[in-house]
Amino acid sequence: MIPTNLCPDDKIGNYINTGEWAGKAYKEAVKIGKKAHLAATSEDKNFSYLPKTFTLSENPAYLHYTTNNTIFGTEYHKDLEVPKDVLLISDMSSDFLSRPVDGNKYGLIYAGAQKNIGPAGATAVIIRKDLMDKMNKGMGTMLSYKTHIEKDSMFNTPPAFPVYVIGLVLKWIENQGLENVLLNNQKKAAFVYDVIDASNFYRGTVEKEDRSLMNITFRLPSEELEDKFIAEAKKLNMIGLKGHRSVGGCRASTYNALPLEAAKALADFMVDFEKRNG
Amino acid sequence: MIPTNLCPDDKIGNYINTGEWAGKAYKEAVKIGKKAHLAATSEDKNFSYLPKTFTLSENPAYLHYTTNNTIFGTEYHKDLEVPKDVLLISDMSSDFLSRPVDGNKYGLIYAGAQKNIGPAGATAVIIRKDLMDKMNKGMGTMLSYKTHIEKDSMFNTPPAFPVYVIGLVLKWIENQGLENVLLNNQKKAAFVYDVIDASNFYRGTVEKEDRSLMNITFRLPSEELEDKFIAEAKKLNMIGLKGHRSVGGCRASTYNALPLEAAKALADFMVDFEKRNG
Repeated sequence: MIPTNLCPDDKIGNYINTGEWAGKAYKEAVKIGKKAHLAATSEDKNFSYLPKTFTLSENPAYLHYTTNNTIFGTEYHKDLEVPKDVLLISDMSSDFLSRPVDGNKYGLIYAGAQKNIGPAGATAVIIRKDLMDKMNKGMGTMLSYKTHIEKDSMFNTPPAFPVYVIGLVLKWIENQGLENVLLNNQKKAAFVYDVIDASNFYRGTVEKEDRSLMNITFRLPSEELEDKFIAEAKKLNMIGLKGHRSVGGCRASTYNALPLEAAKALADFMVDFEKRNG
Repeated sequence: MIPTNLCPDDKIGNYINTGEWAGKAYKEAVKIGKKAHLAATSEDKNFSYLPKTFTLSENPAYLHYTTNNTIFGTEYHKDLEVPKDVLLISDMSSDFLSRPVDGNKYGLIYAGAQKNIGPAGATAVIIRKDLMDKMNKGMGTMLSYKTHIEKDSMFNTPPAFPVYVIGLVLKWIENQGLENVLLNNQKKAAFVYDVIDASNFYRGTVEKEDRSLMNITFRLPSEELEDKFIAEAKKLNMIGLKGHRSVGGCRASTYNALPLEAAKALADFMVDFEKRNG
């Protein structure tokens, strides 16, 4: 919907490719016949770092980037900066409301609900008000952001249950304060990253400064040990630790909903497992 | 998505306009630049009947119609028949799985979940297998039926909770048998239509043969009485009886989930209300 609505025919959509979803966003713009430019990519090192600089095309409509990359375990901890006449657009699907963000810097932010704000089946979109009258026209009614703005997100029957649960989660977040949500996420991630850094047994897979607070990726000395690690953890009710098939290894997801104790329990298990197998 | 996927550039999408949603489907095809033809319409009598005949355009890709029209209270009780080389396509959003349908007659059937099969937030689509390789190409990935077929409806994270509840509802329907679901719906509708037909006080708004088993629309002698009727019913916990603002009057929705007793209670109340106000 972003190129459809926000990339006029005489401009070019700019993309940073930092992994699976970031790359798909670029390919999709090309597929639907828009001019798209890859402003930066970290594909050269299998997406193990995040480019901080980029080269915009001529006539850039926007720069699109993905703040958190679930598969590779990287996360931008600072908003990118773009010239005033370029829109900054971000897919925050996997770290939306996991930390404070300066919304004023962005033309558009979007995020699937299913990581940090509620059940699957809804998407949050934040659009800068003045873009309302600058958007493209002529697309299908459902594909126009303007439709959903004008109809207060009720052009079609909304997914009532997911929206209801999102309402509850937003209150839960508001009661804590986003700063505290971030603090909590930092503590959780630190439990696990500290074990990795103190060990020659575990090995983080991405640049330290780009480590994600949502998805912690790491390897063990061998695939056999990784399988054993995942199987033993499962017996302790720690599930979902297998890394995405495109990168292998292990991945611990520490979204907002995960309690501090769970991250601590994983860290303790990691220390124990290393003692027995290191 | 239907014209995008199933109307090639050298063919024409044919539509029957029987009300709000049927009309929107036609307008949307025109909007996205497809050739579209209005094969029949009942707009001449404010959609109070359903056209059984229609005039197809040259090179018709398909005939699209809406089996049940919630606002006007009409429902096709027989599938329309089209020539073999024309696809029959139906929006069954509001009577899907309320009665047996011969799926073999259709190229495509679609239905929003929120009337008869589950909570809002999912859509059921049934596509004839051989259409897989005949669909248009080049649209956005999400807009291609082929994407969702190939990925088993899990190209994106599916709306897990609505899908789960739909699974439960489908088992509930399967246990009864669709024939019995229809029988039950016929009984419920008959309670209310019988009161209307035996009365000079209540007046049905559509042709008898086209009456919907899902949405029963009727008028009272005056708008004042209608307001009083709706208010008194509400006190008895019978809600949602106000007709859509575009037609006024009263509307009782008797979807699968409504128990027989509820329809009986409404019929009894209607008789009682007439006695006191007729």
